[in-house]
Amino acid sequence: MRTALDEASAAAARGEVPVGALVLAADGRLLARAGNEVEARQDASAHAELLALRAAARMLGSPRLVGCTLVATLEPCPMCAAAASHFRVSRVLFGAYDPKGGGIEHGPRLYAQPGCLHRPEVIGGIEEREAAALLRRFFLIRRG
Amino acid sequence: MRTALDEASAAAARGEVPVGALVLAADGRLLARAGNEVEARQDASAHAELLALRAAARMLGSPRLVGCTLVATLEPCPMCAAAASHFRVSRVLFGAYDPKGGGIEHGPRLYAQPGCLHRPEVIGGIEEREAAALLRRFFLIRRG
Repeated sequence: MRTALDEASAAAARGEVPVGALVLAADGRLLARAGNEVEARQDASAHAELLALRAAARMLGSPRLVGCTLVATLEPCPMCAAAASHFRVSRVLFGAYDPKGGGIEHGPRLYAQPGCLHRPEVIGGIEEREAAALLRRFFLIRRG
Repeated sequence: MRTALDEASAAAARGEVPVGALVLAADGRLLARAGNEVEARQDASAHAELLALRAAARMLGSPRLVGCTLVATLEPCPMCAAAASHFRVSRVLFGAYDPKGGGIEHGPRLYAQPGCLHRPEVIGGIEEREAAALLRRFFLIRRG
């Protein structure tokens, strides 16, 4: 989570919403890390989680990240939560809960949907305070 | 929809699940077209819709596809439905309904979620029979 928080801080420094993510292999090896790049890439789907998942699949040469863990500083949105399921990650760990935009513990609660084909194990709230503080600072400055 | 169906057929010929998509600008101009490329790219997020949305954003040089229409041969999954909302498309038109994997009229019904920030107008069932027949033929051959 420390590395994901570093990615989130780096994203903030680039003027991006500060969210960071990484993918760990089954043996704990770091496969990929990314920060939010929506503005840099002019791509509304360039969320940290989706970038890290795609990079990890490139690393492994497979679209199935079986045994892997997605770590994100914020509860993934429905797009990224659904992507994690498509990529077949075994676990999703995240920092701050997102009551407005989250898609796992809030809103559509995707993994609790009866039709969800692959439900990763989920642990939220890891180093929640720091992840949330990063976001608060960012939006405070931007709105200020 | 004819062009999207051609993309779906081309995807089938490449051994991909036959789904095609395209993005039209507000004036009806074709901005991007794509077929499913999950196998070719070894990327579980390389659904036709997400590829077409990203390509359209590159064409316009903007992550906001305001006024644009996403056309897909199959009801978008939750990942692609959420992406269409992130990209701010104005309309989503699709062919076959997908009771198992769809995320708009089935499952999480993302645009009906109270927290959904941008709800495109949706019309489903356009040339539904042909889109569904393509998928049926593909799975019949693959399972046979």
